[in-house]
Amino acid sequence: MGSNGDTAWQELAAAKRGAILNSIPVKWRLDKIPTVDEQRNVTGAYIEQFLLPKEVEITKADAVGIVEKAASGAWSAVEIAEAFCHRASLSHQLVNCLHETFFDAALADAKELDDWFAEHGKPKGPLHGLPVSLKDQFHVKGVDTTMGYVGWIDTFQGQKGDPRSKTFESEMVRELRQLGAVLYCKTAVPHTLMCGETVNNIIEYTWNPKNRHLSCGGSSGGEGALIALGGSPGGFGTDIGGSIRIPSAFNGLFGLRPTSGRLPYEGMANSMDGQNSVLSVVGPLASSAGGVKLLTKAILSAEPWLHDPLVAEIPWRGDLEVKTKDLIASSKLSVGFLDHDGAVAPHPPLKRALGLLRDAVARSGNQVFDWQPPASSHPTINELVSKTWIYDGGADVRQDFARSGEPWAPQILDVWQERPQADAASIAATNRGLRACRKAYLDYWNGTAADVFVAPCAPFPAARPGRFDYIGYSSFVNGLDLPSVVVPVTTVEKGVDVVDASYQPVSELDKKIQSDYDPEIYDGAPVSLQIIGRRYQEEKLLAIAEWLEGELNKELLTS
Amino acid sequence: MGSNGDTAWQELAAAKRGAILNSIPVKWRLDKIPTVDEQRNVTGAYIEQFLLPKEVEITKADAVGIVEKAASGAWSAVEIAEAFCHRASLSHQLVNCLHETFFDAALADAKELDDWFAEHGKPKGPLHGLPVSLKDQFHVKGVDTTMGYVGWIDTFQGQKGDPRSKTFESEMVRELRQLGAVLYCKTAVPHTLMCGETVNNIIEYTWNPKNRHLSCGGSSGGEGALIALGGSPGGFGTDIGGSIRIPSAFNGLFGLRPTSGRLPYEGMANSMDGQNSVLSVVGPLASSAGGVKLLTKAILSAEPWLHDPLVAEIPWRGDLEVKTKDLIASSKLSVGFLDHDGAVAPHPPLKRALGLLRDAVARSGNQVFDWQPPASSHPTINELVSKTWIYDGGADVRQDFARSGEPWAPQILDVWQERPQADAASIAATNRGLRACRKAYLDYWNGTAADVFVAPCAPFPAARPGRFDYIGYSSFVNGLDLPSVVVPVTTVEKGVDVVDASYQPVSELDKKIQSDYDPEIYDGAPVSLQIIGRRYQEEKLLAIAEWLEGELNKELLTS
Repeated sequence: MGSNGDTAWQELAAAKRGAILNSIPVKWRLDKIPTVDEQRNVTGAYIEQFLLPKEVEITKADAVGIVEKAASGAWSAVEIAEAFCHRASLSHQLVNCLHETFFDAALADAKELDDWFAEHGKPKGPLHGLPVSLKDQFHVKGVDTTMGYVGWIDTFQGQKGDPRSKTFESEMVRELRQLGAVLYCKTAVPHTLMCGETVNNIIEYTWNPKNRHLSCGGSSGGEGALIALGGSPGGFGTDIGGSIRIPSAFNGLFGLRPTSGRLPYEGMANSMDGQNSVLSVVGPLASSAGGVKLLTKAILSAEPWLHDPLVAEIPWRGDLEVKTKDLIASSKLSVGFLDHDGAVAPHPPLKRALGLLRDAVARSGNQVFDWQPPASSHPTINELVSKTWIYDGGADVRQDFARSGEPWAPQILDVWQERPQADAASIAATNRGLRACRKAYLDYWNGTAADVFVAPCAPFPAARPGRFDYIGYSSFVNGLDLPSVVVPVTTVEKGVDVVDASYQPVSELDKKIQSDYDPEIYDGAPVSLQIIGRRYQEEKLLAIAEWLEGELNKELLTS
Repeated sequence: MGSNGDTAWQELAAAKRGAILNSIPVKWRLDKIPTVDEQRNVTGAYIEQFLLPKEVEITKADAVGIVEKAASGAWSAVEIAEAFCHRASLSHQLVNCLHETFFDAALADAKELDDWFAEHGKPKGPLHGLPVSLKDQFHVKGVDTTMGYVGWIDTFQGQKGDPRSKTFESEMVRELRQLGAVLYCKTAVPHTLMCGETVNNIIEYTWNPKNRHLSCGGSSGGEGALIALGGSPGGFGTDIGGSIRIPSAFNGLFGLRPTSGRLPYEGMANSMDGQNSVLSVVGPLASSAGGVKLLTKAILSAEPWLHDPLVAEIPWRGDLEVKTKDLIASSKLSVGFLDHDGAVAPHPPLKRALGLLRDAVARSGNQVFDWQPPASSHPTINELVSKTWIYDGGADVRQDFARSGEPWAPQILDVWQERPQADAASIAATNRGLRACRKAYLDYWNGTAADVFVAPCAPFPAARPGRFDYIGYSSFVNGLDLPSVVVPVTTVEKGVDVVDASYQPVSELDKKIQSDYDPEIYDGAPVSLQIIGRRYQEEKLLAIAEWLEGELNKELLTS
């Protein structure tokens, strides 16, 4: 194992962990963090007790509401930024969700926006004054990008002395600044990024703030936890196997995994960069469907295809959004429902959520049906996707662990420990296999009337620590490169979502995962589903998500 | 070396070669093929002497003219099909440009179209009655796809007894039929497809019909030769290093290499299928810019993204076309000119063509400037592109040669003879390198005012047999994945395009290529250039190509 200079990884990790905590102003520090038995859910009223009333008002607004207030001048960018810096600081202390803070820079940027507003009498851009959090793959000047690796501290992607360290900014960072967003923190990730939980040797473990027995998800887990705590109105994560959707689902948020080539990934840090069979994509998570739409639409308005050679020139298509609304209004939307992928059954609360969403669509007069792609399709796609993750036999991540000599978390795929690299012929075979799967899935889709289909993001509402044993409900979407939006549907109710004693597992894995469900432990966890669309139809998905958000709220009010 | 059953490859190749010739009706056979000294150029008046006047009238029309006549009922689909079957038959006898003919099926399809027209009083689709030729990578029912391999005769992509043999059709074939096109022949390719000439053991060598001292180009060389001879108004080729643009340029045609993901490649045969660092793309070649536009627009109207999972949902954008015309009309178009890529100088006629086109743009009042990307950019991109072609060390093509034991043509890259496969880490490094090149090129572009830029497609107007020694003028476009349209500018005039005795070569390769230029041999060869646009801006490129076609014609009329 390597080492970073003369210092042991434990010391470097502890120093960085301490630096993150120390970057929080003393006035915002908490005396005591409650145990999970004392306070399972630290969101909402719990965290708000530490805030001023105005801060609560600001941080309870969603991204759309914040931008409206900022654009009208009702709230200054500085007061918005301060409120979120405060709430993010509390959030981190409660669940370990931040990797970097840069509150001073944020307040300076907010001040500039306020000056601009005072001078021009109008907002600088569609995100004027909106705090936006970023997963720790974005490079932002002034701070590290560690991606959870101890060996990346004070380097540029592991390279000591690289002049880009703390100076280079990712393309989307440039765009967000131009659009008027205020950047203030970067959020926790699992080292390697290839994990449905968030764990690394710097921040250690990020907990689910709605239920601290559970994981916040991963790999954009810090984003999910922070937004659920109200420490951010919205931010950006990435997704190569579910890493936006899993934390969105586990934390009860809206989140979009766009089609590859829709939003700009240029200049981001990544694992196994250059593996291009299944591309990681960047996308927004937010507390409302409107927030996700706002962020997506804003980035597209910056014409990212002029600066990222992998982005397709497809601006936000308002006509597709309107058409979708008309489709819904005229009861012509057709929605398929995937209740079981043939490999692993979802836990009881997810079955209930599928029923709730199906009922909501049906009640509106729109069409619902069983989504039943050929039985072998999901297992085949998922097997191919998992091959792409281990093309290099773990060479890339092993190198990054070796920089400091740190150990990897047990949750990280152990197939990387020792494995030969794939050769060109086997990579080509995987690419052909994926293309054939995509074609077959498209042919199935064309044989239905479906506009979109609904599926779980994972077999569990959220993973219990160390028990994320099946990624297939999210990764098949990456294999097919389809856009998908997560919609929170309900929360686990231990009295309703009881164990299904009659369940007949189809495999040992299925049995194990089903047995991980415990109503006592899961009580209160968010239960979410994903809505999957045809490639590049993000506008359609977001229109449907907004509509369903309203329908589900209506139902809550009347039930 | 393997063998195909008990029969030597020579016999199998000769039998297939004979079958192609025998598929030509006796009444259309030529008694004698003139030597090149007797008749260098066999296009135009030469080939037309063997046709009836009505056949000449029909086959001289471009695709737009044909579709107009068919749509008005002035010409029947059957008479159009017959005229092109006749002219294609003559073309093949003159230059060896066909791999498959299916004239009876074409005439039956044309009859059905005529019946449809009689019943409905309107054309079946935007390509109603238009004969469309296809490179021998398209699968069409009833005939082989050999891609020039003896070992693929009577198989499906080399597999004996595969039920898809002679029954399966590529996705674009389905779309073309739906749009009203009449399919009647498939055109010659070099075996492996990785060659700028067209040569294989079945049809042997395909000559340039405008100057039979020269190559028709490759790999869509049969398309180029056939269309130049008027044996097809337009057809489809593919391009992974220049294979649409090279034959378009060498034969004086318009041809479009679209952005990857714009037109459907689904279900085509290919070499090294599954290599996805630089994707082969499919695109049209035609005798007019309008023909290329018609074919592109028609395919997009079939919504190929519903059937090919790699196609982006970008319909034909008429607004971009109109905007481009407005730009030109208001003298605001900005065109860069790349006169030399830093590695190999273009031959004198290409230098003259660059001047002619630059003058035409400048004379219109639009903007011209020198396109000068960073000096290392083209060599770096081309080196990376060439790596992608040999990822598998030739395993795929060696297997296909081994099926029959046939030898490969000396023109085929000898690097494939024996070379280890690339591993995942080196493929990832190439992918990262290509992305960095694309980003740097985009940054250069953003620093100019350019809408598009112009470059040669090759350093020579057309290659002399066995002397295609530099592919860099076309392949850099594939590395950057930019759309490019070829525009024929002039023809070599031996009295004008003299050898540049003062030329100082920058390398041995440069010296060799420059010394291949011989005005006597090249006299009469077409001289063409490519116009390169931003990703997915095919509409803009085609509007510019149509405009330039008019400007260059004006110039010819007035000079």
